[in-house]
Amino acid sequence: MTFAKLDDLGRKLEALEHALSILGADEATHMAIGGGEKRADAVSTLAGMHHAQATAPHIRDWIETAKAEDLAADQRLAVEEFERDYVKATCLPTEFVERSSSASMRSEQLWRELRAKGDWKGFEPALQGVVDIAREEAALRSEATGLAPYDALMDKYDPGNRAADIDAVFADLKNFLKAFIPTALDAQEARLAKRPRKALNAPYSIEKQRELGLAAMQAVGFDFNHGSLAVSHHPFCGGVPTDVRMTTRYRTDEFLTSLMGVLHETGHALYEQGLPKNWSHWSLGKARGMGIHESQSLFVEMQLARSPEFWQFAMPLVTQHLGADALPGWDIDDVLTEVNFVERGYIRVDADEVTYPLHVILRYDLEKELIAGTLQVKDIPEAWDAKMQDYLGLSTIDNPKDGPMQDVHWPSGGFGYFPSYTLGAMTAAQLASAMRKDLPNMSADIAKGDFSAINQWRADKIWSQASRYSTPDLITKATGEKLNADYFKSHLKSRYAG
Amino acid sequence: MTFAKLDDLGRKLEALEHALSILGADEATHMAIGGGEKRADAVSTLAGMHHAQATAPHIRDWIETAKAEDLAADQRLAVEEFERDYVKATCLPTEFVERSSSASMRSEQLWRELRAKGDWKGFEPALQGVVDIAREEAALRSEATGLAPYDALMDKYDPGNRAADIDAVFADLKNFLKAFIPTALDAQEARLAKRPRKALNAPYSIEKQRELGLAAMQAVGFDFNHGSLAVSHHPFCGGVPTDVRMTTRYRTDEFLTSLMGVLHETGHALYEQGLPKNWSHWSLGKARGMGIHESQSLFVEMQLARSPEFWQFAMPLVTQHLGADALPGWDIDDVLTEVNFVERGYIRVDADEVTYPLHVILRYDLEKELIAGTLQVKDIPEAWDAKMQDYLGLSTIDNPKDGPMQDVHWPSGGFGYFPSYTLGAMTAAQLASAMRKDLPNMSADIAKGDFSAINQWRADKIWSQASRYSTPDLITKATGEKLNADYFKSHLKSRYAG
Repeated sequence: MTFAKLDDLGRKLEALEHALSILGADEATHMAIGGGEKRADAVSTLAGMHHAQATAPHIRDWIETAKAEDLAADQRLAVEEFERDYVKATCLPTEFVERSSSASMRSEQLWRELRAKGDWKGFEPALQGVVDIAREEAALRSEATGLAPYDALMDKYDPGNRAADIDAVFADLKNFLKAFIPTALDAQEARLAKRPRKALNAPYSIEKQRELGLAAMQAVGFDFNHGSLAVSHHPFCGGVPTDVRMTTRYRTDEFLTSLMGVLHETGHALYEQGLPKNWSHWSLGKARGMGIHESQSLFVEMQLARSPEFWQFAMPLVTQHLGADALPGWDIDDVLTEVNFVERGYIRVDADEVTYPLHVILRYDLEKELIAGTLQVKDIPEAWDAKMQDYLGLSTIDNPKDGPMQDVHWPSGGFGYFPSYTLGAMTAAQLASAMRKDLPNMSADIAKGDFSAINQWRADKIWSQASRYSTPDLITKATGEKLNADYFKSHLKSRYAG
Repeated sequence: MTFAKLDDLGRKLEALEHALSILGADEATHMAIGGGEKRADAVSTLAGMHHAQATAPHIRDWIETAKAEDLAADQRLAVEEFERDYVKATCLPTEFVERSSSASMRSEQLWRELRAKGDWKGFEPALQGVVDIAREEAALRSEATGLAPYDALMDKYDPGNRAADIDAVFADLKNFLKAFIPTALDAQEARLAKRPRKALNAPYSIEKQRELGLAAMQAVGFDFNHGSLAVSHHPFCGGVPTDVRMTTRYRTDEFLTSLMGVLHETGHALYEQGLPKNWSHWSLGKARGMGIHESQSLFVEMQLARSPEFWQFAMPLVTQHLGADALPGWDIDDVLTEVNFVERGYIRVDADEVTYPLHVILRYDLEKELIAGTLQVKDIPEAWDAKMQDYLGLSTIDNPKDGPMQDVHWPSGGFGYFPSYTLGAMTAAQLASAMRKDLPNMSADIAKGDFSAINQWRADKIWSQASRYSTPDLITKATGEKLNADYFKSHLKSRYAG
């Protein structure tokens, strides 16, 4: 059976991916500073071995031959995903890949240097190079897949996502938010007038915050037999499904940011831990994509952990670990005021749940035009400013540092990724709504800190499905309808309009 | 240049070794328990890739061609060491390697089960299998290298070590120790009569012990820019030269065991950190062998850290980190009584500096005979007992658990390794004596905690030499004479006879 060759190749690639994932987590958590250079050499050599093995020309023959073999249903799906990955990895000529890596590395390095100074003019030529390369990549991927150029880029991150579908959903959401944000801000002001923000009782020791984080992870279903929590400057969820490496960072003047971050990463971790173990060496067995991954983290963070029910359970957990006077005189509404605080701002990564999607839609609109060639790099600052004024009433024209220079995605060539964030937020809301119909006790369960039925539902509908369906099909199968903005809008109205 | 191909191969192998080393350290320190199975798969696949790349048939041609090229001096040495490693890795047929791994894995697993019960009879057939395989391996290696069979096994661990040389040195040491141990015990008794052992002031917190260990590492020269200290059940020194992963373990009822363990591992770490960076991807650039490695750890542990001078510097360090009353009423002599306590015992790993070599010589004598076929597995318990009675006056005939079943080495097929421990101890003493001639202020430096001149000497003579010379040649070049027992004997006399 030729399929056995693909199966064996999968095991070899899995071993290299295992090493790369653990080395990546180790680098951020335990590597000695001076170990970086040799680590970079080792990782780049191992990645090269992975690429060489994953793209060997005979694999195309194996795939074609395997397709004609008498395969079990899951093996047939496995071959399809092998092929998807193979095409994705081989559709760019080596010459192009080298040119592209070198352009984005140069551009990212320059960005790190010039961002602090807000030197857009100095950065523009490097970004122009990256955009030129991205257009070329979109054309090459389009040719190999038959997709439209920008769709071919998005397909790297969430297979099946198409601008034609997303345009309508994002337009709906954008129009809603432009009207809703003033409403939410007014409502917040009214609430604050009646109930002013309360003071925290800092400092909160790191040891105790760690214990609280571990208890919260445990409660929402993290399996410590297959993962752990460490500290890193940029929190992440890495490692491998059998040994998920989660990180957070702590500040001692408050604890809510770290706790919410831990819960967000736990959402990613549960997805990885819930993937089907027998498929772990197949492309088919991996998490579907970035949007679905984000839906799982945002489900825990936004749908669960920032809800009043959750805090019925979490409030005693906080006092148990941080002390009876950790939140002096606070009740649940005071916590919700803090964790759901809405504010218009310049920076996407600092944005709250309500304003965040507008940051993403702005980037989505602009990068589609950049790839299509209808927007030029030199015109980005004006285009960015116009949209920021329109969406959030803020001008960035004199402040490129907090405008188009704020994110690493474009400088590093990551076009097509941004929409996943907001598609994930909408997916999380749509999943929560579908789940609530299936689980009438969901609110009571959350208030008790019992996430077993919720996680079983997610395991059945999402985690165990791995890469069996495209992103849109997975959402439709799980929720009974295509992704749309309605559930997210309802969620925002019920949380912020009252 | 064909040499460039070897150079490039070295970089590929280094990347895989980097991954395997860091994964190994990670497994012992940070891996989630349930991650073990997939980790084992990944490591075995990566090790297989390493073996396949290191033993490819065309490498023999590369080596032959490179030898004829116009190479720099260090490149010529590099080719020689590439060849040594290549022969070592290819002289066993694949069929034999598989048979050997499977026999030692079965035997080691059985040993883990039967050791606790002291079931020698149940274990004997498995050990017989491993000894048969070891005889076969010795014959194959002998054929490939032209060395005598047992020498060919030792050569894996310390290139150049020959039984003909070691026999004489070990015989000298054995005869000395049989007479010296009663002298040392009498002297100890006389000292204890005048100055009884003092009580510790436990508990010693793990956090404070860790700070003390880090301070001691720093003082003796560990470079924290290229390494770190963690906790593991079995302490080790692993990782890579640019990122050395050291571990220790703590008990709270005393702190001297952990501190001495940390200093021992720091000795290994300094060797790794001091290897020549430009050669790191060549066999030539690696540490010479196990005996030299052990000489570096024992130099720090035995020659430095258990000396009166060292404790002039270390005593204030202990009170600084563990508190003024950490050793209530102790002076330096009280510490030395504890860290240099001599006692006849059954177990090698628990033995002190004086009795330890007899445990090793016993094993060396027996395993030479096992490989030669002049001792049979069924006769080991009697042979072991006879030697234990002769050397240490202890009988193990009714206690195989603490006799021939105590070590993992034979059950796992590790014949030829034991002598390295005691050769390392003797080498450390001989190095210290040579150093003392070159560095007249050595004692005063140690008392001040200034190890810079000492480490510079070691860097010049040992660390920077990497695998440039055979083990015996390296010792001769560093100390001006062949390895002999005199310096170790003098060291023991001056420390224990007074």
